[in-house]
Order: sequence, then C-alpha cells, then structure tokens
Amino acid sequence: MAHGVKQIIFLGDGIGDRPVPALGGKTPLEYQETPALDLVAREGECGLMYPIRPGLPAGSDTAHMALLGYDPHQYYLGRGPFEAKGVGLDVRPGDLAFRCNFATLSDGIITDRRAGRIKSGTDQLAQALNEAFADGIDGVQVIVKESVEHRAAMILRGEGLSMHVTDADPHEVGVPPWDCKPTPGAEQDPAAQRTARVVNEFVRRSQEILSRAPVNVERVAQGLPPANVLLPRGVGTAPHLQPFSEQWGLSGAMIVEVDLVRGLGMYLGMDVVQVPGATGGADTDEMVLAQAAVAALAEHDFVLCNLKAPDLGGHDSTPEAKCAAIAKVDRAVGYLLDALDWDEHVLMIGGDHCTPITHGDHSGDAVPVAFYGHGVRPDYVTQYGERPCSQGALGRFLAADVMYLLGNYAGTIHKFGA
Amino acid sequence: MAHGVKQIIFLGDGIGDRPVPALGGKTPLEYQETPALDLVAREGECGLMYPIRPGLPAGSDTAHMALLGYDPHQYYLGRGPFEAKGVGLDVRPGDLAFRCNFATLSDGIITDRRAGRIKSGTDQLAQALNEAFADGIDGVQVIVKESVEHRAAMILRGEGLSMHVTDADPHEVGVPPWDCKPTPGAEQDPAAQRTARVVNEFVRRSQEILSRAPVNVERVAQGLPPANVLLPRGVGTAPHLQPFSEQWGLSGAMIVEVDLVRGLGMYLGMDVVQVPGATGGADTDEMVLAQAAVAALAEHDFVLCNLKAPDLGGHDSTPEAKCAAIAKVDRAVGYLLDALDWDEHVLMIGGDHCTPITHGDHSGDAVPVAFYGHGVRPDYVTQYGERPCSQGALGRFLAADVMYLLGNYAGTIHKFGA
Repeated sequence: MAHGVKQIIFLGDGIGDRPVPALGGKTPLEYQETPALDLVAREGECGLMYPIRPGLPAGSDTAHMALLGYDPHQYYLGRGPFEAKGVGLDVRPGDLAFRCNFATLSDGIITDRRAGRIKSGTDQLAQALNEAFADGIDGVQVIVKESVEHRAAMILRGEGLSMHVTDADPHEVGVPPWDCKPTPGAEQDPAAQRTARVVNEFVRRSQEILSRAPVNVERVAQGLPPANVLLPRGVGTAPHLQPFSEQWGLSGAMIVEVDLVRGLGMYLGMDVVQVPGATGGADTDEMVLAQAAVAALAEHDFVLCNLKAPDLGGHDSTPEAKCAAIAKVDRAVGYLLDALDWDEHVLMIGGDHCTPITHGDHSGDAVPVAFYGHGVRPDYVTQYGERPCSQGALGRFLAADVMYLLGNYAGTIHKFGA
Repeated sequence: MAHGVKQIIFLGDGIGDRPVPALGGKTPLEYQETPALDLVAREGECGLMYPIRPGLPAGSDTAHMALLGYDPHQYYLGRGPFEAKGVGLDVRPGDLAFRCNFATLSDGIITDRRAGRIKSGTDQLAQALNEAFADGIDGVQVIVKESVEHRAAMILRGEGLSMHVTDADPHEVGVPPWDCKPTPGAEQDPAAQRTARVVNEFVRRSQEILSRAPVNVERVAQGLPPANVLLPRGVGTAPHLQPFSEQWGLSGAMIVEVDLVRGLGMYLGMDVVQVPGATGGADTDEMVLAQAAVAALAEHDFVLCNLKAPDLGGHDSTPEAKCAAIAKVDRAVGYLLDALDWDEHVLMIGGDHCTPITHGDHSGDAVPVAFYGHGVRPDYVTQYGERPCSQGALGRFLAADVMYLLGNYAGTIHKFGA
C-alpha cells in the first residue's frame, strides 16, 4: 500500500453548465480556454458525477457532505447547525440551530429585517441575550452568537425539542414576527409544540432585552433603526457525524469561500483555513487560494478547496462572469500542477453541482470531473468539459463515491475482505 | 427556476431489442428508418435505462411503476389491484384483488375457460353475484365487476386476509376448479388459510348463483356454453401509493393502450385518457395517439404515452411487425416534434423494457433512451438505437431516475439542501 500520498479536491462551485446560446451553444467550460483543466483531463481519468442522485439538484451543504463521504439522505437535517458552527457556536449533536436576523420592530411591526445592516455592537446584543436567558426557557438552554452585520445564529439545547417548526422571521416588513408553529403534519407532536413555545417566548422577551441594551439606546439617539428583535429561521437539528479524521483516517483541511460549507468543515473537525484575498466574489484572488492549498498540503493528508465565483455567474445568468471565474479556476489548478510532486499527490477537479446560466440556480445535471496524479489510470478523454467527460472511464458516479475513488488512488482505503 | 415547462414520456412498449439475424444482425431500431427518433437523439441527451436493475426483466406494470417513480421492489404486490382498478372497481389500499374469468362448468369439470368468449350479459352476472354476496363471506366483503368478454375482477375487503394464496383458475380445461390454498411457506398463516376458505366458498356458491341467472338460462336455451362459474387468479394486495400529483407536484395524464398500465394510472389518480383508434394492436392509429398527447399537454404538466405494437412484434418474434410498429412510434414522435414548442416542453423517448424478437418475451436488457427539449444538454450521439445510445452522456441509469431527470430539465424538482 502506498503511504504518504496526499489528496486534493479542487472545486469550482457550480462549475458545470448547459449549452448557452450566447456562447454559440457551448457550455462555459467548452467555451473558455482552460489549459490546466484540459491537461488534468488529458493525462487523467474522467467521468460525470451526480451530487446526490441523477437529476436531483443539490445544495452547497448537501453536495459537500456527499463529497466528503457523509450521505445527506441519512444525515442532513437542515442548514442551521452548519451556519451556527460557522459563526463559532459550540454546536453539539441533537442541538436545534437557527439562523437569525437582528431586525427593527416598531409598535409590533417589523420595519427593517436587517436593522439598517447594523455594523457593530451585535456582539454586545448577543451577550445581553445570553445573560438574560442564562437560566434557559422552560428547561431549554438558549445560546446566541452574532455573525457579520445583522446576522446571527442561535441554538436551543434540551430534551424534547423538534426541528419541525416554522420560522419566526416573516421574510418581509410591515408585518409582526410570525408565530412559530409546528409544521404541517407535526401539529400533534409535543416536541414541536414545546419548541414553538420556546421560540415564541424567546422572540417576545428578546424585544424587551434588546430595547434596553445600550447599543440600541445609542442607535435610537442617533436616529438609526434599533436592532430590537432577533428573528430565528431555517431551523435544523445538529446531526451525529463522525469527525472527518476518524471517518477516513486522514487529517483534513478545507479552504472554501462559502460560510455554510466552512461551517460543515468545522462541524466535521476539519482545519478550516481562512485566506485573506479569497473574497468569495468575482474579484477573489485565486492564486492566494491555490497557495493556501499547497501550504495546507504540507500539514494535512487531504485538502478540499472551493472557489465560489463560477456559481455566482450561474446564479446571475452572466456568461462572461462564469467564463472569467472558470479562467480563475484554471489558473489556480495550473498553480497546483506546477507546485506539487504528482508522484506524491492525487487531485480531483470538478464542482459541487451545476449552476447552469440558462437556469439561474443549481440543477441536478451531472458535473464533469477528472482525477490526476498518483495511481490514476488515464482514459481516452483529451479535454475537460461536460461532453468530453461523458466519454471518461469513470462513467457516471455519485459524489458519495469520491472519497473512495480518491483514496483508492492514494492507497488509503482499506481492503474490504481478504 | 423555470416554470410551466411540461414533461412528456413517449414509449414504444418493449421497443428495445437484440441483433436479429433476419435483419442482417441489426436490431429493429437500427434497421428501421426512424428520422424523428434520430433527431431526438442527435439534438438530445442519450443513455441506456434499466427498468428495475441490470438484467432483471420487468413486467409492464413494474416498469411503469418505476418510470413514474414508485419503487416496485417496495410497492409491487401483484397485478390484481391494477387490473381491478382498470375495470372500474373502487380498489382501496389493503384490498385483495383478483383477475377472474367467467368459465363454463359441466358436471364439476371446466369445459371452457372463457364461456365461449361471452360477449354480453356479464354485467348482469356480476350484479347477481354482488347481490348474492351482499352480506359478505365470513365477514369479508366481496365485490365483482365485469370487464370485456369473459374477463372480470374481484376484490375481497376485510381484516385478516393474505395474498399468499393460489389460483382457483386451473389454467386448463378438463379438470375441476383448483382448491385455493395457502402458497408454499404460508401453509400455517391463519390469514392465508382464511383467504383460501373465502375464495373456495365464493367459487362454490358462484356456481349456483350463476347457473340460475337469466343470462345463463338463455345461453343454455340457445346452445351456448353458460358462464356458470367465476374463477379468480393472479391475486395481489392493493399497495399504499401516494397519488402522482402529490408525489411529484404535477398534474399527470396517461395515454396508453395496455389495460394493466391504465389501471396503474387510475390507481395513481392520473387522468387516464381513452383514445378511439388506439387499438393496442398492430393496426393502431399512432397519429390519434400523438394528437391526444398534445391535447392532454394543454391541460396537464405531465403526460405518459405508450404505443403497444412494438411489444407484440417482440412477443410474436416477427421482425417485420416490430419494424412496422417502430415506424409508427417514429411518426407519432415526429408529430410531437412539429406540434410542440420545445422551449416549453421536455420529452423522453424510450420503452418500458426490451422485448427481443429472438427471445419472444421481456428481457432485462437496457432500453435506449433520449431526452429532448427544454434544459437538455446534448451529447455526441447522432442516432437513436441500442448501440448509439450506449455512448450517451447519461450512461446507464434506472427507470426510477427518470422522473428526476425529466423534472431536472423542466425545473420542477426541488433542491435538496441550501
């Protein structure tokens, strides 16, 4: 068995696409010059990967779970826990986790869902809430943590809770906060009823606590909208996931530009590296991302990188932006090709899902993928892209197969049987 | 997300095949000119579809269940419920359903299993049975309904019944009706024992009831064989299946020539359209079928069409008949291509299974399939057929994937994750 071969997954978020009329019927990957990606395909082994199952559009969270070897059908219980972990909360299996907004309430009506995109002081507001709720609500522990601007996360920890409850955030202004209720079908579930009572009690009391907090007294004096209510939404239950290092026997790092995916990495106990210059936008510095990947490989057995920009071009339906983002992915992969010894490394290039320009959202199409480096068995494919990779030796496979395929090349997957 | 894109599955029943010596070693699809099917393949995305699993021959019922997204391994409990639903019985989950023949009994021996292919009066015979059994048998409700000629269906409704019983129909003449018994392995099962007793009691008493019915008195007077016994066979338990509209969030119509599949459609709450001229035979009018599909698409989100004739050519091992039937499929698909706006529709062409001429029955070979229209990502395939489609970008997939693949193109499948 090989030892010491290191594994890299380099993803262009949402990189796969469909033919685009404005690109002469080519996909962005077919249209854009991608010398590095083409080299990987030409000297590597290619295929088409479905994130979860053929035709099922995946989220960023479920797709990355599958790529890292955790079946989302079995383990995915909402984005809340990964969001909460990503902002630094100590999320434990079984916790209920919510995304929250600090919002502005006036006479019981929400007048600003983002409290004027409040820039500072939310740490003090979160602390005020945590102190006021130190004894919990009806035996349920409540912990709040601020994120950037008006964003925050909250966890509820205790017995007899359920994620089958609706949002308190009404997703619009001019109305009061929604009553949190059991979701349809869970009306008779005592845990859902109890959870809704706790959330409603939290929302009600958060108004008094936040209104008298010095940060808000100051904002009102300055004529700014106070952050005088916290509105939970997007609840999820924190799943029991084995840490990445135990699941695969590999030390893993993640260098990604999406908070939600970073939260997943932290939840799995991976080393989540923040890279200055990796903005998550079209202006991201792909070279610092690639350099960070090379640096992380010196310390870890496995590194997953995700460059977000292609997904943005897909969501915005802008061919030029998606092609430019693909060129960034190509340069980053080119850097890896030059920087690493490929007798000692194995690489997968691809995406977490497709975000077709003509669709403007994630689709359930297969993602073109290529493996390169140690142990890889090259096929006939000479170019990277949706159509060329359809002829690859790996055929069609699922994201759930990736850790096995990669580990197989690296020699880190144990034989099953004798 | 796209809205309003409508979805069509157009099947040639049993269309897939194997090389045929009489066709110079080509398959019927390779031999027959099929300009419309080839266009779909050339401008579409192709693959090979296994109805249930590689190599497992599927029935029409199980293949269509899988195509509509209901796992037959989980939900298929015999054809009886779909037959019974197809003839108009109110079949409910948990009912036992049988196909039946009105037959002729003489001195306790079956002399004609089809009662001279009796043409009329079976509605009165069924009514006589329903009246006579109005109080049920041992607490079990009995409901009979006539179908065409000598055919009928029966349901048993009650507690403590089991589908693990043998047929009362001996499938041959010159012998008495079989005793209905628990199937091997179920001999000690009280529910199977009870069901067998009810069936035997029904068969015994049906003889007296039917013998004195005016329809049979008349037939005897005319020298025709009386329909004086009803012989149940092919029992199945009606499964709990979510209606198609709830399963997929789509209003669905079915235009098919096979009673059994029509019964499945009715069981799923689909709108099952009867088309005059669609005979189910080699003489069927494929253009009225195609026109009916276009009409149904004006009212529904999803339409499944099945033209039966290719399957007949396969079962009869007649290459000319199968090629002629494939030409009919091609003309029907050609009509669809001209009639519909393909920015607003997505089509799958294929079959429910293969019925190879050299085999004379359904096989477990993969079926060539092509998708065309909105959202589809064309591949390198230039022709429709078993060999060309093996090079398609969809590779190998299962019928159970079809509703996801089609819904992915149409934009009607919800994202899993965030």
